[in-house]
Amino acid sequence: MSQRPDTPLLDSVQSPADLKRFSDAQLVQLADELRRDTIAAVSQTGGHLGAGLGVVELTVALHAVFDAPKDKIIWDVSHQCYPHKILTGRRDKMLTLRQQDGLSGFTKRSESPYDPFGAAHSSTSISAALGFAVARDLGGACDTGHGDAIAVIGDGAMSAGMAYEAMNNAGHLKKRLIVILNDNEMSIAPPVGALSSYLTQLYAGAPFQDLKDAAKGAVSFLPEPFREGAKRAKDMLKGMAVGGTLFEALGFSYLGPIDGHDLHQLLPVLRTVKDRADGPILIHALTQKGKGYAPAEGSPDRGHARARFDMITGEQKKAPSNAPSYTKVFAQALCDEAAQDPMVCAVTAAMPDGTGLDLFAERYPSRTFDVGIAEQHGVTFCAGLAAGGLKPFCAMYSTFLQRGYDQVVHDVAIQRLPVRFAIDRAGLVGADGATHAGSYDIAYLANLPGFVVMAAADEAELKHMVATAVAHNEGPIAFRYPRGEGQGVEMPERGQVLEIGKGRMIREGQQVAILSFGTRLGEVMSACEALEAKGISPTVADARFAKPLDRALVLKLAADHEALITVEEGAVGGFGSHVAQLLADEGVFDHGLKFRSMVLPDTFIDQASPAAMYDVAQLNAEHIESKVLDVLGVASIGKRA
Amino acid sequence: MSQRPDTPLLDSVQSPADLKRFSDAQLVQLADELRRDTIAAVSQTGGHLGAGLGVVELTVALHAVFDAPKDKIIWDVSHQCYPHKILTGRRDKMLTLRQQDGLSGFTKRSESPYDPFGAAHSSTSISAALGFAVARDLGGACDTGHGDAIAVIGDGAMSAGMAYEAMNNAGHLKKRLIVILNDNEMSIAPPVGALSSYLTQLYAGAPFQDLKDAAKGAVSFLPEPFREGAKRAKDMLKGMAVGGTLFEALGFSYLGPIDGHDLHQLLPVLRTVKDRADGPILIHALTQKGKGYAPAEGSPDRGHARARFDMITGEQKKAPSNAPSYTKVFAQALCDEAAQDPMVCAVTAAMPDGTGLDLFAERYPSRTFDVGIAEQHGVTFCAGLAAGGLKPFCAMYSTFLQRGYDQVVHDVAIQRLPVRFAIDRAGLVGADGATHAGSYDIAYLANLPGFVVMAAADEAELKHMVATAVAHNEGPIAFRYPRGEGQGVEMPERGQVLEIGKGRMIREGQQVAILSFGTRLGEVMSACEALEAKGISPTVADARFAKPLDRALVLKLAADHEALITVEEGAVGGFGSHVAQLLADEGVFDHGLKFRSMVLPDTFIDQASPAAMYDVAQLNAEHIESKVLDVLGVASIGKRA
Repeated sequence: MSQRPDTPLLDSVQSPADLKRFSDAQLVQLADELRRDTIAAVSQTGGHLGAGLGVVELTVALHAVFDAPKDKIIWDVSHQCYPHKILTGRRDKMLTLRQQDGLSGFTKRSESPYDPFGAAHSSTSISAALGFAVARDLGGACDTGHGDAIAVIGDGAMSAGMAYEAMNNAGHLKKRLIVILNDNEMSIAPPVGALSSYLTQLYAGAPFQDLKDAAKGAVSFLPEPFREGAKRAKDMLKGMAVGGTLFEALGFSYLGPIDGHDLHQLLPVLRTVKDRADGPILIHALTQKGKGYAPAEGSPDRGHARARFDMITGEQKKAPSNAPSYTKVFAQALCDEAAQDPMVCAVTAAMPDGTGLDLFAERYPSRTFDVGIAEQHGVTFCAGLAAGGLKPFCAMYSTFLQRGYDQVVHDVAIQRLPVRFAIDRAGLVGADGATHAGSYDIAYLANLPGFVVMAAADEAELKHMVATAVAHNEGPIAFRYPRGEGQGVEMPERGQVLEIGKGRMIREGQQVAILSFGTRLGEVMSACEALEAKGISPTVADARFAKPLDRALVLKLAADHEALITVEEGAVGGFGSHVAQLLADEGVFDHGLKFRSMVLPDTFIDQASPAAMYDVAQLNAEHIESKVLDVLGVASIGKRA
Repeated sequence: MSQRPDTPLLDSVQSPADLKRFSDAQLVQLADELRRDTIAAVSQTGGHLGAGLGVVELTVALHAVFDAPKDKIIWDVSHQCYPHKILTGRRDKMLTLRQQDGLSGFTKRSESPYDPFGAAHSSTSISAALGFAVARDLGGACDTGHGDAIAVIGDGAMSAGMAYEAMNNAGHLKKRLIVILNDNEMSIAPPVGALSSYLTQLYAGAPFQDLKDAAKGAVSFLPEPFREGAKRAKDMLKGMAVGGTLFEALGFSYLGPIDGHDLHQLLPVLRTVKDRADGPILIHALTQKGKGYAPAEGSPDRGHARARFDMITGEQKKAPSNAPSYTKVFAQALCDEAAQDPMVCAVTAAMPDGTGLDLFAERYPSRTFDVGIAEQHGVTFCAGLAAGGLKPFCAMYSTFLQRGYDQVVHDVAIQRLPVRFAIDRAGLVGADGATHAGSYDIAYLANLPGFVVMAAADEAELKHMVATAVAHNEGPIAFRYPRGEGQGVEMPERGQVLEIGKGRMIREGQQVAILSFGTRLGEVMSACEALEAKGISPTVADARFAKPLDRALVLKLAADHEALITVEEGAVGGFGSHVAQLLADEGVFDHGLKFRSMVLPDTFIDQASPAAMYDVAQLNAEHIESKVLDVLGVASIGKRA
């Protein structure tokens, strides 16, 4: 266990109001304590570390200058919100972070009045802040009152189309609105100190127009090495950068760049903005992800997300893994296929690591495309690639594919273009909670004409499905798989091309048939073991396909058994609903069938371990067992009221 | 009947290749003929007129200079594609435009090899073109070969986040790619002739860098009135405009502005680009919607979409309407509610006319927000408005709401914010065809925890649902209604607040119960009349809510009847699936129930009248009648094989 840091000032903070009594020098000390406290907390819980360390000073400055919760501070994505949580009355719960019944790893309206707008997906903050600003000016009734609307958004998030749409609209509406561009893209600490100090002196007290001119002029005053830093600051947005000109064209006043780790710059700038802003204003702050913690600063991802770690060495305390992750199996299988077929290529939307495409990119850099946080473009880009004769794999998390839904319908499905969707993080995902759950993709894809929708029951199946997707060139095809490790099954040398729309029998039994779609199959098999002990021997099949359904298999299972139970890691409207539609159409219900469809429940499930979340969802082995017993009338465990 | 114009050159064109033998002067004449031919065709069919007339010269120039179908010309949205269709072998079918079994009103891959990428929703063209460019460079096998990838995109479409994402990615990849910005936003023909002639002389033959410098310098050479035109040309993109600087920052070479109606400018510019482009390039062409047809030029929407019309006077030949459109009923009801409640406000994404919010805006301009083509932002903006205490109505077509799906899930549903979704164009929509069908919203909304999902059975119900949405402040609520006129029912003075999750009995019968969700109720009642004549008297209920379901009503209908049939204007996974899930959970199927769920079929249905489309979908009165007869075993009409 690491020692708790000495934090006398922080210990005296019960709410952000307490920051008002500190001098600027004390706020600097507070920031230092807050940083150490954040590191200490995350060393014990794991979580997003680098982002929070990058905004420690910004967090202190915002709460020192503005009046939350009346002023609405909206953290984009919000994985940088840990210091904010510590300052807003949640310090004593930080060790419950991302755990069941504990604090969320993100901002959350239901958790605190200091979280006016929750997030977890990127690029929503400006839209939300604009909503608050308009509501304020139209007299909307808000429990916490109305003040300033402040969006804090990273440079990556700013590159998404949604942020651009919001800026465009905000500039048009001309409401008082503050956007802080938290620009941490630089891989090495930028030498902007001299520039920023220079700028900050100018800021304090000078009217905005003068400030902007001074900022523009400042670059040429600086010696060469600093000038480079300033230039890079201006180039911060991939492709967007024209200094402040772009933001000004969008109707924003632009202030910056300033050093986001220097409270002697942040405080006067924020105070000036608070006193004088009368329209949309963008403050461009340069920060460093992982700032102030050497092991994070020294790692390639700047300590983006961490398992529990040793506070001194930074060494992570991950449990040893037994089986490869689904993500790695996908990436390896795709590499194998790409070696055979030069048409195979892959697209990710800013998630090369999360999707495993970093591995693919190492071997096939010219066939890998990271389009940025741009799911809408990413999907239609894949449609174009397919129309042009390639075999694109669009690798996205289930929850993020929601961002490109219209493109899936309009550009891919209607045109029957053979885009392959590799849908990671299907089902419940654990510590990231409800915002990252992949609950809806089966429902929102399986009713699209011409789509093939698969789910892998284990990592060997995933390998087969990658091969199947390569081979299927007649239209769109999707396969989903969960976060985490595989089942530890033996891996085939090569993936086999599955017959489209054909499931597989797993075990023959009687009385009740369980038709599984996806990785609940492992739980189904565990349930069967328990049931065998009670003299019940279910038939089990793996559907493999939600679309096209294996009609013959479904109808045979229905005909041969008294009861049929479907199991899936998705919400109602998906696999089970398609099975029910078939059974209804065919008149199977007319004379009775004990049919049940086990789906995710009608509730957003908070973070916990995936297994614990599936307990809440009642989709683990014991629940499947109970459902079988219940439906057969053998016992009434788990019977719904 | 209008007289067919004399078109000797056009008559000699069988395919775009024929344009290669024309002189530039002949191409000017061809454009003139093409314009008159387009007007003549649309006068008889109705359709999108203004957009096509704005790109007549551009269409001629593109086909004269480039080699379609090897070169991929991708029309964004593609309602401007009629002249393109006439030149690409579809002239003899133009009178079937937007009619059943006729030509689509949009580009369509299955219709012609000259339509490399279909569209109908906006802002997809750059993504698609980039896909073709990458596929070309990676050796993708394309039936029509590979050449240039050319996106033609309007200024409105360019303002969407998706287009920005695509530009950002294209600039990064540096592939040869041509984007033509078809800038027709100016409400009066801009005085750019002198500027453009000047520029064109410079373009012909000069290297790009010189061209750009010349273009930049050109403004200052012009007399004042022309300078204003050039300035407006530079300001063309709402908020984006910094001359070509923005596009250059995104990695594009910028050429323009040029006069998009002057072939003596278009042809040399396109020829130069074809010869020399070696990366992404943007050509900025100024055009006038409705160009060359006085009745269109003189109308406020520049002849955007037209019913059949008299070619001389421009007078439209619309059938007289009997009942108010659902859109108008919604708008009027919202105005009535807004008069009582100052918190009511409304958001549209560039569709004030289509959603009826133009009427709302007249009465409540400060409470109406047109966010542009920006559904992602629009939905989250509404979430912010709701969090700030307002009562926002997010008015979007079902098909376009797909663009904001993740925002509906992540920002609205998970946070249980009371955003009201007014979903127009639910179900099949007629002449706009499959791309505009509102088929999926029931499925993609009804499985979101905490959502209320309603469908109006008629225009009076719609009025009640608007009132219900105003009153429901506990979480998100959606109501859907179709395109077109209401049923002609008597309208209530004020909308009544419906009890959440309660359906209504329409008629009591026996043997079979029909549970309708939405405007199929009229067809259900017609079916009942026919059934009465055969001695069958069905029970009919209007569910009103897909979520929360009226469980008591569903279970009572199931208990009291031999058969239960659900009917909805949506795909599987929606209302009927939720009913099936309830029936399964409750064990109703265990002992037999003749349950059927009538949903949209598993196919994209091409344009026709809505009634004809519902014939294809088998959701009209006769199909409901057949389903009842079939399920009761009375007859076997319509029985599925």
